[in-house]
Amino acid sequence: MWLPHRFKHCSACGAAVEYRVPADDNRERATCTACASIHYQNPINVVGTLPVWGEGADAQVLLCKRAIEPRYGLWTLPAGFLELGETVAEGAARETDEEAGAQIELGPLYCLLNVVKVGQIHLFYRARLLSTEFAPGPETLEARLFREEEVPWDQLAFRTIRETLQRFFEDRRLGRPFALHSADIA
Amino acid sequence: MWLPHRFKHCSACGAAVEYRVPADDNRERATCTACASIHYQNPINVVGTLPVWGEGADAQVLLCKRAIEPRYGLWTLPAGFLELGETVAEGAARETDEEAGAQIELGPLYCLLNVVKVGQIHLFYRARLLSTEFAPGPETLEARLFREEEVPWDQLAFRTIRETLQRFFEDRRLGRPFALHSADIA
Repeated sequence: MWLPHRFKHCSACGAAVEYRVPADDNRERATCTACASIHYQNPINVVGTLPVWGEGADAQVLLCKRAIEPRYGLWTLPAGFLELGETVAEGAARETDEEAGAQIELGPLYCLLNVVKVGQIHLFYRARLLSTEFAPGPETLEARLFREEEVPWDQLAFRTIRETLQRFFEDRRLGRPFALHSADIA
Repeated sequence: MWLPHRFKHCSACGAAVEYRVPADDNRERATCTACASIHYQNPINVVGTLPVWGEGADAQVLLCKRAIEPRYGLWTLPAGFLELGETVAEGAARETDEEAGAQIELGPLYCLLNVVKVGQIHLFYRARLLSTEFAPGPETLEARLFREEEVPWDQLAFRTIRETLQRFFEDRRLGRPFALHSADIA
């Protein structure tokens, strides 16, 4: 099975680990050959927002041009890894502040996207921009608003960004209420 | 800051780690004193279902009596840690099969509950039971259906189970559509 990384040593005692199926389990886990500690590896959450300025056909979305790898120079919604000590919504708001310096009112959860092949769950909240002044942080080259026809579809950093933007513009165009979307990214 | 566990050794090379703030970061991370590997720790997802038999005032929910610690002998909805290689919905369905042996049709996401103090996100899907025959796995002493007035409120294993059940019975009683609930567990 794919793992984000393979443990070679035990994080408790430093001895070598082996991948084996523990008793009462059905999956291989990194198991210490000395102290028997088991080290589980699980999917990680990426949290962010879809910040929108204006409504209806005038709606514009905020995208950030990445100043870091991976995908340096490509456009993303503000998002990053959820940290210990915060809720999903708090993490999404924090990333929006850190990456774009944008003032927002956080809305409801809009997309839950499974990216199984890299062990990630991407969660995007809708957000209403309270200002068009941005203050991009060190991970962002530029933060700016895009109308639907301006979105750089061939310069987006991740599939989950495309999926989220497509769903937003489609919901808006069809006048649908903005309910939660779930999807799996192959 | 609270951590689920503290790394003492590097999982790549086995040398000692120290918690320090890496360059371009703002949080302490377990950093190897020998090979400089950084080991991130992030919240983990617990996924499960709210399996329901019948509708309206006749609705019954499926609970499982735990055969394992923590909370041996208390009642829970079928749920467990999301694994690598599966989507959130697949994990919720797998746990329902493993813990209750219940036949279900998975519904939409119903609750997203942040349990910040233990670094967990609990995600429950609604599910429609297709049968009242259950086949509890080794982690479950007993699986059975409960009407609202039968729910053992003082014998529930976790706060997130109580929150999810309370919301379900309240939505049902008020005839509200079953939309996503988000809440933070203090």
